[in-house]
Amino acid sequence: MKPPDRILLAHGGGGRLTQELVRELFLPALSNPALKVLSDSAILPELPPGRPALTTDAFVVDPPVFPGGDLGYLSVCGTVNDLAVAGATPVALTWALVLEEGLELDLLRMFVAGAARAAAEAGVSIVAGDTKVVPRGKGDRAYVTAAGLGVVPPGRDLGDHRIAAGDAVLVSGPLGDHGATVMACRHKLEGRGLRSDCAPLAGLVAALLASGADVHAMHDPTRGGLATTCNEVASRSGLRVVLEQGAVPVRPEVLGVCEVLGLDPLYVACEGRVVAFVATGDADRALQVLRDHPLGQGAARVGRVSERGRGEAPVVLRTLYKTERALDLLAGAELPRIC
Amino acid sequence: MKPPDRILLAHGGGGRLTQELVRELFLPALSNPALKVLSDSAILPELPPGRPALTTDAFVVDPPVFPGGDLGYLSVCGTVNDLAVAGATPVALTWALVLEEGLELDLLRMFVAGAARAAAEAGVSIVAGDTKVVPRGKGDRAYVTAAGLGVVPPGRDLGDHRIAAGDAVLVSGPLGDHGATVMACRHKLEGRGLRSDCAPLAGLVAALLASGADVHAMHDPTRGGLATTCNEVASRSGLRVVLEQGAVPVRPEVLGVCEVLGLDPLYVACEGRVVAFVATGDADRALQVLRDHPLGQGAARVGRVSERGRGEAPVVLRTLYKTERALDLLAGAELPRIC
Repeated sequence: MKPPDRILLAHGGGGRLTQELVRELFLPALSNPALKVLSDSAILPELPPGRPALTTDAFVVDPPVFPGGDLGYLSVCGTVNDLAVAGATPVALTWALVLEEGLELDLLRMFVAGAARAAAEAGVSIVAGDTKVVPRGKGDRAYVTAAGLGVVPPGRDLGDHRIAAGDAVLVSGPLGDHGATVMACRHKLEGRGLRSDCAPLAGLVAALLASGADVHAMHDPTRGGLATTCNEVASRSGLRVVLEQGAVPVRPEVLGVCEVLGLDPLYVACEGRVVAFVATGDADRALQVLRDHPLGQGAARVGRVSERGRGEAPVVLRTLYKTERALDLLAGAELPRIC
Repeated sequence: MKPPDRILLAHGGGGRLTQELVRELFLPALSNPALKVLSDSAILPELPPGRPALTTDAFVVDPPVFPGGDLGYLSVCGTVNDLAVAGATPVALTWALVLEEGLELDLLRMFVAGAARAAAEAGVSIVAGDTKVVPRGKGDRAYVTAAGLGVVPPGRDLGDHRIAAGDAVLVSGPLGDHGATVMACRHKLEGRGLRSDCAPLAGLVAALLASGADVHAMHDPTRGGLATTCNEVASRSGLRVVLEQGAVPVRPEVLGVCEVLGLDPLYVACEGRVVAFVATGDADRALQVLRDHPLGQGAARVGRVSERGRGEAPVVLRTLYKTERALDLLAGAELPRIC
């Protein structure tokens, strides 16, 4: 009998078809010593000294394949980046799938290959996984949830508690490429030149931290984009973030999509950019380190942190006309399923 | 404006509604120091010595509420148990949701409360999470993916590589309660007395290991039940597992559901049972330790491991008539969405 070229409910039953999927599709692409054992938990070598970091993200991006990435590649990038911006060296990932009955196996193969490619780029292994199948109409091809384990080396302390008035705000490249690309695909807009920025940032962040520049905190501006990240920082630190409109890099193609769809690029997701809050005296050096890395060539200094006066908006944009516009947290309906 | 009593797409957008959900629904139920920071990764205190264990499972159980548990409670139990049977002390969990637009917030609250209850019972914290929302008809109320981090203490080595011919096979209680309960709910069968066995086994396993009994390997017989677990063990060890039909505990209520639905209870999932492979000389002591624990009162010795001759079935059931029936791996279609 010819093997099925689509996912069946039985692939999620835990029996023979589940095992075939694991052995024939997942293991060859992701193989590593911890995963190979295929037991209830992956047992890893003892961690290097430091504090463990743990993160998780669910990925439901629609469409699941887009210029510059796919669901699998994105899921590993997003998880690696959450570890990296916390100052953690990624160690291992888990990767769990909820598949819709009828999913083409070729599409699944593409997601697994994408995850394997991102893991290789980030120097991390996928050591445990799980697959469940839901009936047609109870899913949408594939949802992925990844979790990541990393280690923060002894003596490293990054976080919003370290951000101080005067800090420079740096971004590692143009904003909104991921979100604009996915939205253009979904709405079948002309998207010449558009490409997701989706990339694993472990190397870029390691280079920045190795430079000795006094980095206080980092974040990856995913859902909700730079404006939302800055709102979260302002909320946690009690300070104010002032962005300079003229300094924020946005590609013309991204601006074009945002205009058509009525989006503000400051709220559009990136999946391969870091926002760094750096002591002002070290800002130029940090910027140069970012620009010297292949994933940070478009880095820019986009604003600064200041004290927040009573009643002042937590995040503002100083426009090209020197006026200030508050960048509030949006209600969140504008960009569902962007990651 | 009255807050919505159902999940909106905007709850997954990363903006204001996402943050409200986190602050008003998740944090109060799950609060702990690592989660409270709400940053990209949870940073934990340094781990005790030992090898880290990592595991993940997606949960798509249908229906998501059943006697003895719910999606949230089940998800934490399943993840804790995967760590425990690997000999790891659970340290921290992550918990990610894919919600369908329109989900009642009260149901979500029940899942979060269930997860919090199981975490408290297992002595573990949920330190990181994520929520995505998909449109109506692209999900089924809620899917949860949990991942778990544990530590295997120095010198502890459990696994199928340690199983030897002669080992006793123990189970910690009657089989199939979880699967039979979920199937009875789904098919609206009369299910008096049925109740999922769903429970976190970290304490039971710790007691067994602390007893000093020579435990070689443990597994939790979830999807595919005891027969599938034994097939996996036989495949990994190259040995043969012989189960005694007369010794396998199955509740009459579970047998009743299995008869109506044409299921073999040996293939029906448990979510609160452990299968232990123990050196034969220590089997009685191990059994007593299990029976002395509230979650192991129905423990039984159900079989033994033997050498596997050429052409012999890897797993067999010795029936009440002393004949042998091969317990093959099933194709897996029989019990979708049981966990």
